[in-house]
Amino acid sequence: MRWLAEVHVRLRPGIADPEGQTIAGGLRSLGFDEVHEVHAGKLLRIAFEADDQAAADAALESMCRRLLANPVMETADWELRAAGETAGRVGS
Amino acid sequence: MRWLAEVHVRLRPGIADPEGQTIAGGLRSLGFDEVHEVHAGKLLRIAFEADDQAAADAALESMCRRLLANPVMETADWELRAAGETAGRVGS
Repeated sequence: MRWLAEVHVRLRPGIADPEGQTIAGGLRSLGFDEVHEVHAGKLLRIAFEADDQAAADAALESMCRRLLANPVMETADWELRAAGETAGRVGS
Repeated sequence: MRWLAEVHVRLRPGIADPEGQTIAGGLRSLGFDEVHEVHAGKLLRIAFEADDQAAADAALESMCRRLLANPVMETADWELRAAGETAGRVGS
């Protein structure tokens, strides 16, 4: 069966985030003085096949560990739903 | 009052996504043959001040239009919550 996952990859707290700082500076220079901080991350939507939800979660955990996130600097969590469903569930 | 927004920036359907295609190819070459497709986007967490929820939504809409997303190629939506709250609400 087909699954859709939305994977959120974020930098761990304390890791330098020059992209986020640049975006924050850009917003302030446009007049958004009320911006405190911006953190930049990646958003990956993955469509894949798996037999059931446990297998889908296991595949995502493996994909994150082996390619999608650098575990030294980043964390990953995801929302998973069966293709066609609107409500999802959360993993990490 | 302080707000936390999680902004999701995605490519519009039909726009070429070489980053997503590269990630999909990388996953398949690692043995994840069950991957159909990957779409890559940006995940931005923004902490900022606004008087109320309507003002916060208006500020986010303006930030997305002026800097965070290219409206020709991208769409943006966000989840907004008051700092300290755990549940959020969705905008776009």
